[in-house]
Amino acid sequence: MDHRHSLDLKNAIRAIPDYPKPGIIFRDITTLLGDARAFRRAVDELVQPFAGLKIAKIAGIEARGFILGGAVAHQLSAGFVPVRKKGKLPHETVSVTYQLEYGTDEIEVHKDAVKRGERVLLVDDLVATGGTAEAAVNLLSSLGAEVVAACFIVDLPDLGGADKVRRLGVPVRTLVAFSGH
Amino acid sequence: MDHRHSLDLKNAIRAIPDYPKPGIIFRDITTLLGDARAFRRAVDELVQPFAGLKIAKIAGIEARGFILGGAVAHQLSAGFVPVRKKGKLPHETVSVTYQLEYGTDEIEVHKDAVKRGERVLLVDDLVATGGTAEAAVNLLSSLGAEVVAACFIVDLPDLGGADKVRRLGVPVRTLVAFSGH
Repeated sequence: MDHRHSLDLKNAIRAIPDYPKPGIIFRDITTLLGDARAFRRAVDELVQPFAGLKIAKIAGIEARGFILGGAVAHQLSAGFVPVRKKGKLPHETVSVTYQLEYGTDEIEVHKDAVKRGERVLLVDDLVATGGTAEAAVNLLSSLGAEVVAACFIVDLPDLGGADKVRRLGVPVRTLVAFSGH
Repeated sequence: MDHRHSLDLKNAIRAIPDYPKPGIIFRDITTLLGDARAFRRAVDELVQPFAGLKIAKIAGIEARGFILGGAVAHQLSAGFVPVRKKGKLPHETVSVTYQLEYGTDEIEVHKDAVKRGERVLLVDDLVATGGTAEAAVNLLSSLGAEVVAACFIVDLPDLGGADKVRRLGVPVRTLVAFSGH
């Protein structure tokens, strides 16, 4: 991506010091989402390498990944699959439990959300440790989907999440990075 | 909308009997979202009357309203404002408490999410009793936004939610209706 565009996107993201706890700088993308030009640019830049790749489904991770994923699905004329926190989906699901810094979390998708061999693009707003993204890739793969790539607006490279997803054999696209958060 | 299109959308929505409790038929739009053509048609039909109306922001209600709202914002080249459950937004918020069948709930938006006079379109997947939509309209109006309309894929007219929103002076657009749920 053009350096100036990347800088524009970076500037559209608000930094919130000491949130959710002291010493953490939270990268708040609501300011980017609320800026019509920045939002459109982020979506268009994110999907640009995938336009010709016959993506059948966008898998968006609850909740901010839903906003971006909905727009990406519309832009690529793909279907949308919600990857939700445990207990939110009304039909038969498959779920996966994964490790957090303290404790565990669980995400799930509908069993019939993807078909075997279907090409899926994973979308979320931000990749930090990559635990949720890794779990989502495993979940979608367990249903036979081919996770073509994972894309995020923001990368926090110090936390290694993008590399964790790449080690699963899934290419990762991010638009802006914040180091030394 | 063309009757055949409406029927296509209706058929794309899965009925789940006795969810979340006995006697309720849950209208599951994940099957519509996952169907690329139905999803695109729903988004395009929803926004069709608003294309020339200089909508500045789409307000999407957590969580399914995020998926649809993201796509609508992209389609209308508008910004996106998340209307979230209490405690999820990282910056200064305004919130409103509203009545549920049993008990209360609370939603909030960032204080700087909309500017005075800004034209906002409210988006969610489904309108039932309209409690959340009414609360969202009040919240956005309290910040000085002009809520131009509210739109939903599904209306449950027996529950009167669309009429409740119309009584606030906000036009309502829905694409399919299920009666006698």
